[in-house]
Amino acid sequence: MSDLDRLIQLLAKLPGLGPRSARRAALFLLKRREALMEPLAAALAETAQRIRPCTVCGNLDTLEPCSLCRDPRRDVSLVCVVEDVADLWAVERSGAYRGRYHVLGGTLSALDGVGPEDLHIDRLVRRVADGGVREVILAMNATVEGQTTAHYIMDRLAGSGTQISRLAHGVPVGGELDYLDEGTLSAALAARQPLKSP
Amino acid sequence: MSDLDRLIQLLAKLPGLGPRSARRAALFLLKRREALMEPLAAALAETAQRIRPCTVCGNLDTLEPCSLCRDPRRDVSLVCVVEDVADLWAVERSGAYRGRYHVLGGTLSALDGVGPEDLHIDRLVRRVADGGVREVILAMNATVEGQTTAHYIMDRLAGSGTQISRLAHGVPVGGELDYLDEGTLSAALAARQPLKSP
Repeated sequence: MSDLDRLIQLLAKLPGLGPRSARRAALFLLKRREALMEPLAAALAETAQRIRPCTVCGNLDTLEPCSLCRDPRRDVSLVCVVEDVADLWAVERSGAYRGRYHVLGGTLSALDGVGPEDLHIDRLVRRVADGGVREVILAMNATVEGQTTAHYIMDRLAGSGTQISRLAHGVPVGGELDYLDEGTLSAALAARQPLKSP
Repeated sequence: MSDLDRLIQLLAKLPGLGPRSARRAALFLLKRREALMEPLAAALAETAQRIRPCTVCGNLDTLEPCSLCRDPRRDVSLVCVVEDVADLWAVERSGAYRGRYHVLGGTLSALDGVGPEDLHIDRLVRRVADGGVREVILAMNATVEGQTTAHYIMDRLAGSGTQISRLAHGVPVGGELDYLDEGTLSAALAARQPLKSP
């Protein structure tokens, strides 16, 4: 196999790229050798070498503990539990959260043989037991696995004296009712908010 | 900017990946450090260092002249002219061609300010003038720019005594007439083939 075939084969493994778009990407890179291909090779090598999961929260960072865990401006008494680092990034992008995180590394799934010991749940329980955590926000995905995992964590944290909350369900901002599933609409109705007292 | 942000920014420049899918790809890579991220970094660096355009045909290869140009089993008297290396790959994948190639590096485009001197057209004319080429197959895309370029090359090669041909137009294999544009259908009708003599 040639260098090029091997590169295309590796690129095709990335999510969102198939064999066809991997070829296109390889050619695109070859035409931008100095501007893109070499910087990308270097960025991949450096990042692979330097980034590790934070031993406190599971975030991926070059620092240990990670920059979020060592940021003194972030509220240490608030822990947002997410399934994956991608979810942590999503919450960070919202700019609406200034507490700490806990990355589980997945969800419980009987089908895929993922049990509590495969996730960072014990670590979360210890973190809460160590004290100083006022509220745990369960920010799992609104899927069956996500909600099952949230319930399991709720049970494990019962009696810890810590407030446990979850994200609100409702109509997405910019969402059209006509395109919304019934479950979301029911949830949004049930959690309707008063606008003005009569 | 962090290592990770820089990596995501570079990945987002690839065709087919936007900012969102670049984040997903970065995370995917970080979770497969040894299996994918490090091999990809190495493949990019090696390929960037070793692959160059062939000075004969413009194909990208680690060899000079390229492996297609030095393959003695390929018919040296047949030259297939393509716009881009991606098109060369497409013709190769068909498995239906055993001649040589000539990569133009684009198409003539008044709009984008691409003139004949920006493409490897002089090199093609010299290649034909040097002799030994029996047929030049113009395999440009069936776009306005592609066809303009084909016409220009045809003019330049007029009087060279070399047979010039172009790819057939017609119904794509597996294509449904109902979904076909009128131009293709007209071309397919005009170029209809007799199946059986009466």
